[in-house]
Amino acid sequence: MKFLKTLPVAGALMALPTFALAQDAAPGFDEIGPYIMTTLLFLVGGFLVFWMAAGFAMLEAGLVRSKNVAMQLTKNVALFSIAAIAYWAVGFNLMYPGDFNGYFAFNFVPTVLEPVGLSAADAALDYASVASDFFFQLMFVAATASIVSGALAERIKLWPFLIFVVVLTGILYPITGSWQWGGGWLSELGFSDFAGSTVVHSVGGWAALAGAIVLGPRLGKYKDGKTVPMPGSNLALATLGTFILWLGWFGFNGGSQLAAGTVGDITDVGRIFANTNMAAASGAVVALIATQILYKKPDLTMVLNGALAGLVSITAEPLAPSLFGSLLIGGVGGIIVVLTVPMLDKFKIDDVVGAIPVHLIAGIWGTIAVAFSGSATITAQLTGIVAYGVFTFVASLILWFILKAVMGIRVSEEAEVAGLDMSELGMEAYDITKG
Amino acid sequence: MKFLKTLPVAGALMALPTFALAQDAAPGFDEIGPYIMTTLLFLVGGFLVFWMAAGFAMLEAGLVRSKNVAMQLTKNVALFSIAAIAYWAVGFNLMYPGDFNGYFAFNFVPTVLEPVGLSAADAALDYASVASDFFFQLMFVAATASIVSGALAERIKLWPFLIFVVVLTGILYPITGSWQWGGGWLSELGFSDFAGSTVVHSVGGWAALAGAIVLGPRLGKYKDGKTVPMPGSNLALATLGTFILWLGWFGFNGGSQLAAGTVGDITDVGRIFANTNMAAASGAVVALIATQILYKKPDLTMVLNGALAGLVSITAEPLAPSLFGSLLIGGVGGIIVVLTVPMLDKFKIDDVVGAIPVHLIAGIWGTIAVAFSGSATITAQLTGIVAYGVFTFVASLILWFILKAVMGIRVSEEAEVAGLDMSELGMEAYDITKG
Amino acid sequence: MKFLKTLPVAGALMALPTFALAQDAAPGFDEIGPYIMTTLLFLVGGFLVFWMAAGFAMLEAGLVRSKNVAMQLTKNVALFSIAAIAYWAVGFNLMYPGDFNGYFAFNFVPTVLEPVGLSAADAALDYASVASDFFFQLMFVAATASIVSGALAERIKLWPFLIFVVVLTGILYPITGSWQWGGGWLSELGFSDFAGSTVVHSVGGWAALAGAIVLGPRLGKYKDGKTVPMPGSNLALATLGTFILWLGWFGFNGGSQLAAGTVGDITDVGRIFANTNMAAASGAVVALIATQILYKKPDLTMVLNGALAGLVSITAEPLAPSLFGSLLIGGVGGIIVVLTVPMLDKFKIDDVVGAIPVHLIAGIWGTIAVAFSGSATITAQLTGIVAYGVFTFVASLILWFILKAVMGIRVSEEAEVAGLDMSELGMEAYDITKG
Repeated sequence: MKFLKTLPVAGALMALPTFALAQDAAPGFDEIGPYIMTTLLFLVGGFLVFWMAAGFAMLEAGLVRSKNVAMQLTKNVALFSIAAIAYWAVGFNLMYPGDFNGYFAFNFVPTVLEPVGLSAADAALDYASVASDFFFQLMFVAATASIVSGALAERIKLWPFLIFVVVLTGILYPITGSWQWGGGWLSELGFSDFAGSTVVHSVGGWAALAGAIVLGPRLGKYKDGKTVPMPGSNLALATLGTFILWLGWFGFNGGSQLAAGTVGDITDVGRIFANTNMAAASGAVVALIATQILYKKPDLTMVLNGALAGLVSITAEPLAPSLFGSLLIGGVGGIIVVLTVPMLDKFKIDDVVGAIPVHLIAGIWGTIAVAFSGSATITAQLTGIVAYGVFTFVASLILWFILKAVMGIRVSEEAEVAGLDMSELGMEAYDITKG
Repeated sequence: MKFLKTLPVAGALMALPTFALAQDAAPGFDEIGPYIMTTLLFLVGGFLVFWMAAGFAMLEAGLVRSKNVAMQLTKNVALFSIAAIAYWAVGFNLMYPGDFNGYFAFNFVPTVLEPVGLSAADAALDYASVASDFFFQLMFVAATASIVSGALAERIKLWPFLIFVVVLTGILYPITGSWQWGGGWLSELGFSDFAGSTVVHSVGGWAALAGAIVLGPRLGKYKDGKTVPMPGSNLALATLGTFILWLGWFGFNGGSQLAAGTVGDITDVGRIFANTNMAAASGAVVALIATQILYKKPDLTMVLNGALAGLVSITAEPLAPSLFGSLLIGGVGGIIVVLTVPMLDKFKIDDVVGAIPVHLIAGIWGTIAVAFSGSATITAQLTGIVAYGVFTFVASLILWFILKAVMGIRVSEEAEVAGLDMSELGMEAYDITKG
Repeated sequence: MKFLKTLPVAGALMALPTFALAQDAAPGFDEIGPYIMTTLLFLVGGFLVFWMAAGFAMLEAGLVRSKNVAMQLTKNVALFSIAAIAYWAVGFNLMYPGDFNGYFAFNFVPTVLEPVGLSAADAALDYASVASDFFFQLMFVAATASIVSGALAERIKLWPFLIFVVVLTGILYPITGSWQWGGGWLSELGFSDFAGSTVVHSVGGWAALAGAIVLGPRLGKYKDGKTVPMPGSNLALATLGTFILWLGWFGFNGGSQLAAGTVGDITDVGRIFANTNMAAASGAVVALIATQILYKKPDLTMVLNGALAGLVSITAEPLAPSLFGSLLIGGVGGIIVVLTVPMLDKFKIDDVVGAIPVHLIAGIWGTIAVAFSGSATITAQLTGIVAYGVFTFVASLILWFILKAVMGIRVSEEAEVAGLDMSELGMEAYDITKG
């Protein structure tokens, strides 16, 4: 995803060819076609990425225990809705401020769309509709928040979590997002992150890691030096969530081409679709084989997370690699998941759904892999990874500590044992009896 | 959604520019581009609205008790299929008759598509393919029928319900639809309903209300002056259904722009997507906060219905409002759900999934809200609301009474207690044991 | 789906008009518009057909018993991923070899995409991006493999099944696919199969039939001359899967128009969408009525399979029929399912989800029905049906026997009784208790 061209400049640029034509003639498809196609790309890409919100909800609801399912669903619907409002209120203009110091824009204004029935003369014909771009970008910030909700499931209180989401989606993500996609200092430096292995996924992962450390593991998760398995309640739901995310990812990566109105751009979108699919497939197959070898039995949860890690890995550069390159990049993602899920447990960091291996660690790998395809230097990539990590981890840590001090972030032991559904919501997710 | 331009007129109009060109030259993208883009809008919008059928099925299956899940699924698959056939057989041509008296068209003919391989000279180049338009419109009538199935769940017999669906989708909905979108008297009067808060959602709600009154509440629902909660069997499914509906709504509202081949039109579609998303998010957040305040505990079912009410509210005018206006319109929708769900219970009207608050009451609110954005007068809006309400409620009431008299519409007490799945279908939806 | 035009030829052809223009001018939308629209059709069609992988997974997970759900999910994720890799490694180029002997191409090379940022001068402007075409075609082969996994569920070992998938998707399907869509002998003969009733669905069905015969029925399925019902564990999931497949089918059939950049092509895509929907609706309604008449109770599973059989039936020719024709074609599909599911049981062929009636038998019917619309002779259609059947059935039979001899294809009796989830994966799909 390149940074948003600002509307007035683009409008001015486009006045020229229009002027050169007969005064009254409406501009033809040679002029408006690219604008229409790119706007369409944002809308289709945007609804696909929206769909990922459902994917995260199903994945997480499937991987928590049944006593926490209704709460996990509530959190996911709420976080998406809050992200949509926070990103409108301040996030979008913080992230895409146009001209700014490269680090932070004092630009706390809500998003305003173009007027109804925009004329071609007033449109940024070399770009796309602002509304469609806002719609598309908004869906990315929601993904970041979803990553956090999965890792901290089954023990965090609803309201402090939602306050964290407000700050993450309205302020933190937009600030760091502006460094790269808003045309800030990392973009100047040559850091490259096409669709957000770092900007979206690692950011979510760092915020989740900070939260998991402050919050502590679930009761009984680590006992006498051993990790107690707490299997998910509904693997059909988790599998559905994975397929939804996989589908949405075509919009996530493909839409990040940010243009679809030339032969080169639409062909590139096709390349991205094919590469994205290959990386996911490769991550799944590698995780399948690796769990068979390591544990003598294939592990469905690992296979699902392997596919997701493949997707995160290719997200930093889904265009440049060949299909074979995508297979390698995604395959390493699959290995990462299988190896780092137990590693986190060694540090007693309790990540309920495996969000940190999938989004943070595979996100770092994907960002480094960009250097292999020559789209950026390894120095630029490492600088970006560290900068995003330090800022997001430290800011999140501070925020989690403040929330802990002010209102508490963890439910009582009784509530946790009883399950958040009954204790916090007074309802159960499932009542699948014969009656 | 504006009314369908009739094909022959449009064809004649388009003959002129074609004629003006060199005799043999195939028309270029300046002429055919808008037709292609609008047809594409209908196809993409149409498959998104199709997807809403799955959304209603999952939402309703999740909100009924487990003993009625298989029946609710059967009803949803069947009603969609029947709607597709009835709307082809008579509905589409009743609703879009071209020239007619403004109230009713004696036009009982099945839909006929264009020939294969249509030439540009024979196409309505200022509109879109009839097939794509039919496909898109058909999905709307199915939504109307889905609303009814949710409200009347857990006690209505399958076959009388399906007969009602035939009449609703083949006759009732098309007649009232023609008043507005077919170019009838309400359209003349200045009534405005962009994508169907009234034409689709309230119509479904009125039909459901009439049915709920004739059918009576579920056994044991109201006891000693108290409402007995009957929680849904699967909130993960209900949440999935809500996400599906939310996704489909981008097609529902965005496709109702009915054009995508100019800068103004595609930009408007983008505005609609952004506003639609904002209204849903706002409805969900408002319902979350309202239930926390009123009941001290957030209520997931209310949050889901809050999002849906936000969507219904913005449907009458998703284009004109600003994002902030959409936030307000959707937020009021969220409040409406929280306040009117218990109100219906006071009148002992048993609406299993909350379809009447969401689709009828929020639909009325959304239709009134159009007047605030200046797209229509409040008089025109109230006239339309009353006209749709009186016609649909009375016609539905008569039809429900006839069905009750002729074949009975309610299952026996024993069947209701045992559950419709075993008593009517002889199967169960779930067998999730360890074996 | 017509066969792929080879890139170099197309490039050469397109050089002419470019040359005729001013040397420097970028080609306008009259030249590039069709390429962009068709590429977009492949991408949108492709992600819809991708979504069918989720549909098959949910349908099959819903129709197996709960003790085999996790394994069925694992198989579906794995088979899709393996198909994606095998089709890249050899399948695509075996299936679309360009010039070949018409039966088999010695063409074992992986797929290579166009370079990044393709210029219009180097593009096959009369076709579409190779990457988008590859992406689209790849999704079809995955559907073939999904058909097999459903029929053989609950008793086949994971790894032999996955080895079969490698050969099916990498070799068998591409070879027979080349006969028709690759421009081979059946295409020369006038055999017609627009989107793959035979090429995709019957091929999957034949491979499944061979497997079901070699594998034998589930323990206890046929006892004392009677068929023991083994109802699915989650009909909500099965219904969701059916809706997903229905949605994906718009891409399956619509995308198979293989062009969207002229008035005729995009209008045809609209026809295909409308006809596809009608056939599905008709299949569902016919199965509903037929089960009510035959068994006195509607059968949800039959209704779902009726919709799917309607879809398979219209797939060989979704363009030429009228809506009424589509209703008839799909309706016969619905009847076929109701009549042939018990027939298979008489032969003690145990097809867990009804894949053989839906995909093989309705696929044969759909292929024959093409002759009624005049798109092909009945002789050509029967030749194709027999050729695909003999090759796929025999090759699959041999492969299943080899796998059986070398490594065994069936789990032990104990494992089957315990369920594949615990015995093969060591996990359960559901843990939906109160705790």
